[in-house]
Order: sequence, then C-alpha cells, then structure tokens
Amino acid sequence: MSEKKYKAAVITMSDKGYRGERSDTSGPAIMQILKEKGMEVVEYFLIPDEFEVITYHLKKLCDEEVCDLIITTGGTGCAKRDVTPEATKSVIEKEIPGIAEAIRYKSLQITPKAMLGRGVAGICNNTMIINLPGSEKAVRESMEVFIDVVPHALDTLKGKAEDCGRE
Amino acid sequence: MSEKKYKAAVITMSDKGYRGERSDTSGPAIMQILKEKGMEVVEYFLIPDEFEVITYHLKKLCDEEVCDLIITTGGTGCAKRDVTPEATKSVIEKEIPGIAEAIRYKSLQITPKAMLGRGVAGICNNTMIINLPGSEKAVRESMEVFIDVVPHALDTLKGKAEDCGRE
Amino acid sequence: MSEKKYKAAVITMSDKGYRGERSDTSGPAIMQILKEKGMEVVEYFLIPDEFEVITYHLKKLCDEEVCDLIITTGGTGCAKRDVTPEATKSVIEKEIPGIAEAIRYKSLQITPKAMLGRGVAGICNNTMIINLPGSEKAVRESMEVFIDVVPHALDTLKGKAEDCGRE
Repeated sequence: MSEKKYKAAVITMSDKGYRGERSDTSGPAIMQILKEKGMEVVEYFLIPDEFEVITYHLKKLCDEEVCDLIITTGGTGCAKRDVTPEATKSVIEKEIPGIAEAIRYKSLQITPKAMLGRGVAGICNNTMIINLPGSEKAVRESMEVFIDVVPHALDTLKGKAEDCGRE
Repeated sequence: MSEKKYKAAVITMSDKGYRGERSDTSGPAIMQILKEKGMEVVEYFLIPDEFEVITYHLKKLCDEEVCDLIITTGGTGCAKRDVTPEATKSVIEKEIPGIAEAIRYKSLQITPKAMLGRGVAGICNNTMIINLPGSEKAVRESMEVFIDVVPHALDTLKGKAEDCGRE
Repeated sequence: MSEKKYKAAVITMSDKGYRGERSDTSGPAIMQILKEKGMEVVEYFLIPDEFEVITYHLKKLCDEEVCDLIITTGGTGCAKRDVTPEATKSVIEKEIPGIAEAIRYKSLQITPKAMLGRGVAGICNNTMIINLPGSEKAVRESMEVFIDVVPHALDTLKGKAEDCGRE
C-alpha cells in the first residue's frame, strides 16, 4: 500500500449540468469514494460536453501537475455530444486499456448496455486519467472495479514501486 | 424500445465470394436476423477484400445517410487480405470498443480462436458500423451478443434517448 | 495443427537486466515454452526500455523476415520507462486486440493488478508480435492463454489456412 496521500481531480462532463438543468450527483459520489480511500480531492469542475473545453482542463491539470489522478464522469456514450473518450485520447501519451475493459466486463454482468460505454484510461505526464460513465449508479459500480489498484499504479508511475508487471 | 424502424445495410467482404467461388451465407443470415428484429434492410453488397473498395462503400453509405446501421462480415482475421478493421477504423470518428470486446468474450467461451477476431465497431456521422467475422456460425453467435442494445444505441445517436450511460 | 516449424524471437525489455543488475528469467521461460510447443527459437535479445532500441529490433526482425513470431517480455506497465506497447504499436500495421484482452481477462482472475498490463499484439509484414508482462510468473500464465492458437494464426498469415474467422 502506498504511503503517500495522492491528489485527485474530478471532472463532470454534462451539458445539462453545466446549464443548471440537472444537479450533478456523480461527481460528488466520486469525491466521496476518493476521500474514503484516503485520497485528497483538490479540484472539481462541471463542464459542458465540448471537446476543446475538456482537453483544455485535462491538459492544464496534467501540465501544471495539479493532481496525480483525474477521474471524469459523463460524455462516454454514443450521443453526438459525447466526446470525453476522444478528448482524453488526444491528451494521453499512454493508454491503459485494461482499466476500461475491466469496468465494461464488470458492468456487462449488470446490463448489456454496458458494452456501449466508450470510456478510456491512460497517462499524461505524471497524471493518470480515467473516464467513467455519467450515471451515479454506474460510477459507484465502476469505482469498485479499479480504485484499489490506483495507489499501486501511481506508485509505479512516480517511480516509487517496481513496474506493475514485475512483482 | 425504439419506436422508429431503423434502416440497415449489410456488406460481405470476401474475395472468393466476389469471384463467385463461394456462396455467401453470412450476409443473408445477418439480413434475416435484422428483419426478425424489426429493422429494414436497405442495401446488401458483396465486395472483395480491398481497403479502398471497403472504405468507399462505408463512407458512401454514411455520407448519404442511406442507413442507420452497417453490419459487415468477413475480413477480420489475420490473413494478408483481411483489412476490414483497418478500413472501418479509417472511416469512423468514434470507436465503441465494448461491442467488439463483448463479441470476442462470448466467442472465447466457444473457441480460443475467437481471440484472433480483429473486428471493430464505431460511429461515422449518424451511422453505426459493426464488423463481424466471416463464418455464418460466428455471425449468428455474434449477433446475439449485441443486437438487442442496437436500438438504444441508435436512439442515443439520433438524439431520441438520453446518453447510453446516464439512465 | 500446422505442419511447418515456425521460427520465433524473444526480446526482454529491462533496464536492470541490460545493466546486469537483474538476471532475466522471463525470456528463458518463454524460449522453453516455445520449444516445448515445437517452435524454433532463432533470436534472443535483452535490451533496455528505450523506444528507439525496441522499434529498431522489432522492425529489423520483421523486415528481414528473421522469424514468424516475436514475443516480448517487460515494459508493459505504468512506469515512465515502460514503452513496449507504444513501440510495438508504431511498428505493427494490424492490431490483434483479442490476444491482449484474453491475457488480461485470464490474469484478472489471479490479481486485479492485471488490469494495469498495457501489452498489445499485432502483425508487421509476415511476423506476429505479442507483448507479455515482465514477471516470469505472469509470462507463464499469459503464454498458456494464447500459445495454442499461434500456429493457426501464423498459418492464416502465411496463406496456409483459411481466414481465422471462416472455418
């Protein structure tokens, strides 16, 4: 287990949330779980489903080393405005496909619609980015799948642990 | 369940089929299943495993909004001439990795060779494209995995339903 | 079953191994399994985790048709120096995502950390490349997942068998 208290940012992508037409329960759910897991939440944004806005915030957080982990919620579906995975892929240098696969595989036991979730995960500089679906229920189910391997992944990324695959 | 009767096109990629050396049973099997599921089949092509021919047909169907769904069969294996996934990736703007993962995961329960299937799924404009393997047996097994989530995915793409992940 | 004795190369990516600070047990484990499966091992390299060094060796082996299969071990994790998947992706023309998915899916039954393995598999010219994790234990578990479909995949690639998906 990691000794360091890692810093996390949470970004909710939601046109309706941004316009004040829907209250965001997914972002707060992620923040609560992160705190329960001993992480410090340093930023929270609610932004519209705009490619440029998403990449701007992701890049800024990573370039300025504001946090070690960014978890996003929303914008991973099949709607025209869902561009979170494309924005994330344009920012990361390395993809971690197994995190998204594991989330979908787990969710597929609950609903076949889980195969439509297009979220990705990856690394930009020293920060790990993970896309989650938009619903609070899906967020809670997804967090369970990967949250306990995040400290190890960050230890490895920061050079504090051996390569993920070598222990 | 979607109210609208969605339109589908079926494309079989097969050098042998194109040369008349093999009769295509996979394309007709897909068309039969689509009709049973209440969709209208508006186009059917049998084309050779040529990258440019495949992208031409995919792009034309999507650009002219001929159909809401394109299902392809063949050209997803490891042979030199198998280029359907590469042609599809060059046309789609958004990938839906979970559909291909779910097909492979299901097929892997039947045969380990399923891990060699390289099919992809994604969205081009207002049309969803899904690659299936070439054999009729594999086509029937694969269709079962995803066909019932397609109307919801298309409703979302066309703005008739909430984002896949938000219900 | 394939009649031909296929040729394989094994590459271990490891900064510590390259500097002589750790002995490579993963590379030899792969070679032993390949021989047990009737393949001929024609090359073995131990190289550092350098993008250019990795792509140089992969490309050379493929361009000079030295072997039919390259199996790599190491460099697939989340550490800064782990670039094997990126180097492999820059060399292959076709990805075979199902092999990496099947390895992760199997490993996930053993440890949740398996979702952090970023290995890829694909085809460059006439050669198949498969990335495995760095640890000998993970290598042995991973080889079991796919090794028995490799002769069929190579038969297909070399035009000696029908397309993977058409039997």
